[in-house]
Amino acid sequence: MQGDGEGPLAAHRVIGFASDFGTRDPYVGICHAVIARIDPGLRVIDLGHEIPAGEVRRGATMLAQAAPFLPQPPLLLAVVDPGVGTDRAGLVVATSRGGLLVGPDNGLLMWAADALGGAAAGYSIENRALLLEPRSHTFHGRDVFAPVAARLALGLPPAEVGPSLPVEGLVRLPDPVVLIAPGRLTVEILMVDRYGNLQTAARLDQLAAALGDSGPAVEDGPLTVEASDHILTVEAGDHELTARLGTTYGSVQPGEAVVYVDSAGLVAVARNGADAAAALQVRAGDQVTIRR
Amino acid sequence: MQGDGEGPLAAHRVIGFASDFGTRDPYVGICHAVIARIDPGLRVIDLGHEIPAGEVRRGATMLAQAAPFLPQPPLLLAVVDPGVGTDRAGLVVATSRGGLLVGPDNGLLMWAADALGGAAAGYSIENRALLLEPRSHTFHGRDVFAPVAARLALGLPPAEVGPSLPVEGLVRLPDPVVLIAPGRLTVEILMVDRYGNLQTAARLDQLAAALGDSGPAVEDGPLTVEASDHILTVEAGDHELTARLGTTYGSVQPGEAVVYVDSAGLVAVARNGADAAAALQVRAGDQVTIRR
Amino acid sequence: MQGDGEGPLAAHRVIGFASDFGTRDPYVGICHAVIARIDPGLRVIDLGHEIPAGEVRRGATMLAQAAPFLPQPPLLLAVVDPGVGTDRAGLVVATSRGGLLVGPDNGLLMWAADALGGAAAGYSIENRALLLEPRSHTFHGRDVFAPVAARLALGLPPAEVGPSLPVEGLVRLPDPVVLIAPGRLTVEILMVDRYGNLQTAARLDQLAAALGDSGPAVEDGPLTVEASDHILTVEAGDHELTARLGTTYGSVQPGEAVVYVDSAGLVAVARNGADAAAALQVRAGDQVTIRR
Repeated sequence: MQGDGEGPLAAHRVIGFASDFGTRDPYVGICHAVIARIDPGLRVIDLGHEIPAGEVRRGATMLAQAAPFLPQPPLLLAVVDPGVGTDRAGLVVATSRGGLLVGPDNGLLMWAADALGGAAAGYSIENRALLLEPRSHTFHGRDVFAPVAARLALGLPPAEVGPSLPVEGLVRLPDPVVLIAPGRLTVEILMVDRYGNLQTAARLDQLAAALGDSGPAVEDGPLTVEASDHILTVEAGDHELTARLGTTYGSVQPGEAVVYVDSAGLVAVARNGADAAAALQVRAGDQVTIRR
Repeated sequence: MQGDGEGPLAAHRVIGFASDFGTRDPYVGICHAVIARIDPGLRVIDLGHEIPAGEVRRGATMLAQAAPFLPQPPLLLAVVDPGVGTDRAGLVVATSRGGLLVGPDNGLLMWAADALGGAAAGYSIENRALLLEPRSHTFHGRDVFAPVAARLALGLPPAEVGPSLPVEGLVRLPDPVVLIAPGRLTVEILMVDRYGNLQTAARLDQLAAALGDSGPAVEDGPLTVEASDHILTVEAGDHELTARLGTTYGSVQPGEAVVYVDSAGLVAVARNGADAAAALQVRAGDQVTIRR
Repeated sequence: MQGDGEGPLAAHRVIGFASDFGTRDPYVGICHAVIARIDPGLRVIDLGHEIPAGEVRRGATMLAQAAPFLPQPPLLLAVVDPGVGTDRAGLVVATSRGGLLVGPDNGLLMWAADALGGAAAGYSIENRALLLEPRSHTFHGRDVFAPVAARLALGLPPAEVGPSLPVEGLVRLPDPVVLIAPGRLTVEILMVDRYGNLQTAARLDQLAAALGDSGPAVEDGPLTVEASDHILTVEAGDHELTARLGTTYGSVQPGEAVVYVDSAGLVAVARNGADAAAALQVRAGDQVTIRR
């Protein structure tokens, strides 16, 4: 089971685990316990369990942004599952570059699959020999998804979890809204983090296309925006912020707003040392408009 | 120290760790550090650290529900300890099936001990050679319980922590309230989770006994309740919900309430996609009545 | 890479990790992922990620108090970095006893360095071969500090991260306020924990010096204060508590206040089973006065 010369854990895959279970309840710990019972040497990395309850879209965003940083190809276990116990399938997705994703077939896994080369195959989890018995109707994280992820980490071929599902039939979430118009970009907020920074669904080239001459000069790659003297307005409903283009929070004075490319490569809005989301009264799923 | 052929960690026991330390303060991390300092190869699974401060009963519930899912027989480290530094004993409980539990003698460990075969022996932690020095009066998680759990994980016989305590003298919490009357079940709420689902202390057979003909048909084991057309009322003080029997949240329409058997095998109340506890204005420790 | 006879993980250093990333966002998990990608056998202990956003002083306190409990000499990764992406240096500090600390040069690391024997050398992280590319301007935890910590854990000599920085030029935070006057001690609150206990910056001998005859008898070491009949007043602004000297919460009746030496060896104020900080309306950074 061990010993290919790369150290004692190298033969097993690390499991990246995200959910909406929260940290107040024992659900996350119980899933870890189930995995450790199958093999105490398995390593699990918690990617976050405070996804708001039932918010599949928020979970899909988090997974897609974390997946590229795990040991490649990654193995992801994800549970945001308001339909638990209904006839939605339990799913394993295999990507074209060898990634494996385990969770409900409700769209949660597919943005991460895209980020890992695209879904190449899907399997419906139906092999009851892999599951905990008695199986509950309300905690498939414990009884279905965690044990399947553990088996996959130990080398189980994904086709053994159950019958193949056509990739084109897997549930997908609607794409985020990104509307490019002359002089203005209207875009969905994917994430508001604890600092109050807004991550939008737009890439820098989309912002540049909208803003034209007053927009960012894209000079040295996707993660850098050249600071400019152009003043932008970020608005959401009745609220607005005056912002500058910059590279980081410190590009503007304390309390001022900056439009920048964030660490996931997406256009974002922050205030230096302050909370941009509170100022705009927005949350994930809302839209903002960035204009000249 | 290693090497019985089952992998590099197999000779040591995994430690399941729960507390009311919260995640805002460094207390949990410091306990992990203490264990790693004794042996960096020891594995600790966090079962949850957001037990409300000082709520021993809530901690006892969590432990009892998580314990059966750890590698068996488990080793549990638990700290909800409002009496730290007083003359309450530091305790190791050994169960009849080989489980070991470490924590204060205030009732916290005993429901988990019951779930693991029952307490077979108790020991008062008095062997100062096992403890951190200088020993504080307010953080026995760090100075007493974590180092003792680490030593037990490495194979220390529990009798070496200190003198034996009679099992019948260990502190026990009062049993939860479960009152069965014709047509109505009044029962204590053990846990309200982040979704607002209420877990009661009643088993399905107790609900069936109360409800009689209008109650659930118990047909295929403890985790399944047959859906029925019978309408139930769940009431707490001045608040009530109309509910149906079901197997999962999706058994009812969005916003409607369902009475079901949860993943711990207990009667529970939820609303599909909504918060049942908020609707009833209840929290753990309160009572609800389920009636025809 | 393995195998010095002390077990499979003994050749690598455990990484203690603290930040203000919170647990709601994926940032902590992504840093863990980056480390696991460099070597999945590396062990990371989370010391806490709920440091309030941008509060460097609070982070410095936490690190200094946790560091002595890690496997010695410790390797610390710490990120509270409101100046990320500006010209503040990325820093590795080596202490006189072999400790290594990785994080921004904003004072965050220096109290822990003091607790680990004092800073002996500093290095500016400039070796781009060690960093993730493309490197973001806003998430150096992921792109700079985590990968450098992982390399150090695997044995990289700290001088290889970049040029040496003079220790006396490293940013230091102002010392906490401790004012000793006849009959009264005015002192900064370093930490308010989830129980509402106030940890001050004063040692017991400083309290004794202020209170004189009505102060604590220091008899058996730094962690014990002898209970006394003397009544103390703890005041903050318009609020005050009457308190007794004691050793632990249970030294006083439920709801009453106690002045004691906490588990970090500092003078602290608590109420037995109640919240002292709420009663005094204080938070970390505020000052309290303890007087006869």
